[in-house]
Amino acid sequence: MTIFSKIIKGEIPSYKIAEDEYFYAFLDIFPMMKGHTLIVPKVEVDKFFDVSDDLMQRWLVFAKPIAQAIEAVVPCNRVGMSVVGLEVPHAHMHLIPINSADDLNFTRPKLKLSPEEFKEIQAQITARL
Amino acid sequence: MTIFSKIIKGEIPSYKIAEDEYFYAFLDIFPMMKGHTLIVPKVEVDKFFDVSDDLMQRWLVFAKPIAQAIEAVVPCNRVGMSVVGLEVPHAHMHLIPINSADDLNFTRPKLKLSPEEFKEIQAQITARL
Repeated sequence: MTIFSKIIKGEIPSYKIAEDEYFYAFLDIFPMMKGHTLIVPKVEVDKFFDVSDDLMQRWLVFAKPIAQAIEAVVPCNRVGMSVVGLEVPHAHMHLIPINSADDLNFTRPKLKLSPEEFKEIQAQITARL
Repeated sequence: MTIFSKIIKGEIPSYKIAEDEYFYAFLDIFPMMKGHTLIVPKVEVDKFFDVSDDLMQRWLVFAKPIAQAIEAVVPCNRVGMSVVGLEVPHAHMHLIPINSADDLNFTRPKLKLSPEEFKEIQAQITARL
């Protein structure tokens, strides 16, 4: 079972943002920016583009209100999106508030946030959903 | 009219990869990696997450076979995806073959390819579609 499946099942705690029958969204604990959120399908598929067409049709519709909520509470130009997938063999999408292309550069050092900071941004985003 | 709308209308030439009623895909002329492809909706919307739910449902289903074709012809670990959108006010998605997270780092210098190289990779990808 992947670490994301353990998070979805609640075996590993997470700062949950949203959930439906098909997807689970939560704050990345190694954020590039405050509000950095991961969206993971509940089914385990390694490569993003191997995900079924049915899930593909649903994914961005699920992501859209989350991205708009992040944009509403985190000062930024807009919310960017990225799929890399080289570290965890469970397809996932990053939603990241950005002001420059460098804010989507995964080789940068990650932010260190306290549990209080995570809880605060979680509360702000979920209040908009 | 955005530069992407001019490309879609054929007023600016492009190395076209695929097209349907809603989207146009073509090689990025400032590629991060060989095979770097842009997908643009035919309707002009600035921010990706302002695109209609109808297009959101269609976008990844349109992208999937293109990503799989790129992965089949460009040596890589997988095809990554990114939406930045800070330069052209017309929502677009990057499909980029990657071997490391740095291959999705938009602050890196871009590749310089000759017209012959663009035509060759265009022919290889479209042959798989």
